[in-house]
Amino acid sequence: MTSIKDVASLAGVAVGTVSRVINNSGAVKPKTRKKVEEAIQELNYFPNEVARNFKMQKSKMVALLLPSIWNPFFSELAYYIEDELDREGFKLMLCNSGGKPEKELYYLEMLRQNKVAGIVGITYNDIENNVSNDIPIVSIDRHFNKKITCVTSDNYEGGRLALRELVKAGVKKPAFLGSITSVFSETMNRRKGFIDEAEALGIDYVIYEKPDPIVDDNAYFNEFLKEHGDVDGIFAITDMLAANYIERARRQGKRVPEDIKVIGYDGIQDNPYFHPILSTIRQPVEEMARMTIRLLYNKIEGIPLDKQVYRIPVMFKQGETT
Amino acid sequence: MTSIKDVASLAGVAVGTVSRVINNSGAVKPKTRKKVEEAIQELNYFPNEVARNFKMQKSKMVALLLPSIWNPFFSELAYYIEDELDREGFKLMLCNSGGKPEKELYYLEMLRQNKVAGIVGITYNDIENNVSNDIPIVSIDRHFNKKITCVTSDNYEGGRLALRELVKAGVKKPAFLGSITSVFSETMNRRKGFIDEAEALGIDYVIYEKPDPIVDDNAYFNEFLKEHGDVDGIFAITDMLAANYIERARRQGKRVPEDIKVIGYDGIQDNPYFHPILSTIRQPVEEMARMTIRLLYNKIEGIPLDKQVYRIPVMFKQGETT
Repeated sequence: MTSIKDVASLAGVAVGTVSRVINNSGAVKPKTRKKVEEAIQELNYFPNEVARNFKMQKSKMVALLLPSIWNPFFSELAYYIEDELDREGFKLMLCNSGGKPEKELYYLEMLRQNKVAGIVGITYNDIENNVSNDIPIVSIDRHFNKKITCVTSDNYEGGRLALRELVKAGVKKPAFLGSITSVFSETMNRRKGFIDEAEALGIDYVIYEKPDPIVDDNAYFNEFLKEHGDVDGIFAITDMLAANYIERARRQGKRVPEDIKVIGYDGIQDNPYFHPILSTIRQPVEEMARMTIRLLYNKIEGIPLDKQVYRIPVMFKQGETT
Repeated sequence: MTSIKDVASLAGVAVGTVSRVINNSGAVKPKTRKKVEEAIQELNYFPNEVARNFKMQKSKMVALLLPSIWNPFFSELAYYIEDELDREGFKLMLCNSGGKPEKELYYLEMLRQNKVAGIVGITYNDIENNVSNDIPIVSIDRHFNKKITCVTSDNYEGGRLALRELVKAGVKKPAFLGSITSVFSETMNRRKGFIDEAEALGIDYVIYEKPDPIVDDNAYFNEFLKEHGDVDGIFAITDMLAANYIERARRQGKRVPEDIKVIGYDGIQDNPYFHPILSTIRQPVEEMARMTIRLLYNKIEGIPLDKQVYRIPVMFKQGETT
């Protein structure tokens, strides 16, 4: 097997010079660099990353800890995160937690053992005391109390925007449909924006929430449909909840958007062949992913950040339901 | 920081014994193992995986090379692959190639450098000469000529089944809609099964294909709709193509399923809120994923496999389009 010595010998330079070229560390004259790169190519030399990691005690692996890659919002996010990491030669390790706290803890321990360079975490459980201080981490969508950097869409402005769009579409009595999580989540700001905007405009509204996770969909929607028959507009906390609501409302003879206007949140639909195409507050997924990785790089390099929460502007996307 | 010596000292055993427990190598008495495990727990000792990998010159990392995790079929596959890997303590590295051959080659080199334990590859390009012989690899959905183990759904039986289901639904003149790739792909067997079954039953049929990738959707469908007005049933090579066809046929006033029955292939829809819910040949994604990983384990362990291509049975899933 070709060694670094063979490369140095062919290029006519010292082993340390080859090492500096490979690791992009320290100054190397362009001419020397070229000779080394040619020798690497000619000998088909691959530096052994496992050995290098051992020596440098760090890896170029970033872990993405999320509930499930199967969810279309998360898979889009993972796509852009991997793309942004690859630009700097970082690799992505995928960890599906199933949203279970014990699985999240298990992964956090595993990641500590594996000395990953950093972690991108999408968690909805109260695991903050188990997040190690020594691994750089950026969270998406939720705050940790422990001063962990967080990137989210601007949930509060999203809630305000949804309320305004419903009113613009002629809605007189809008309702917010959601669920209540036990720990604070950034997504709660969707409700807050909705309420603040309704009150600013002097509009009567309904807040309908049950504890998360909602295990009985039927009970959830039947109770709402029964108790709030006068509602003519819905802002659902996610697109999936909006689509689920529409299906059930239609079965009761309510037409969308004729009788009831509906706006979701996420923007998960990426093709125009399945209906209804939801009117929704679209999360800027690509920007969120790239921002997350750029912040993580700063943390890995020890560069201080100016904020703890980074909120990316959202947009309203017109569909068939308003 | 706690070292392996501290663990050995607390457990009252030799360092070699602790090492055998951690690596699950060599015989250790159950009682001794218990003492070591208790000491590990009490001292909160984490063996350093980077160091261990260096010593053993192998990693517990498996790479998944696919066109895009954003595609719902691939993200479901990735979900189950990660789940199956995790059962044996393996980790998943995600590599999106964008379907580009140069990106696939880049990743294959990178994986060689990183000494991954194995690769799961979903590629549709002709990269077989660049697939290293020393890394165990299992491919999904396509053959490599180079005797690479491949796991696919039973595409041929899927094509036969689709034809039979169309006929059962009353179709007199079925058409196959597809695209032609330059290298052989297992998915071509969908067309073959469709043709063989139509000929066995003595049914008139149409094969409509254009070179892959189809860049101009409009031209593709307009030509088909114009030239084959007598077709009353469609078997599309993917669900996405089926959904795209339905949207365009409807714009021309053709009703699905009243005028034309449509069957797709994949089974990508996992919620009942977006319509049309396609009638489709469902790929057994979970079984394919788990089978792939079990075969990869065998290859990693050097256990010979009895076949080169493993085909998993498919099922017809009734939707709203037949």
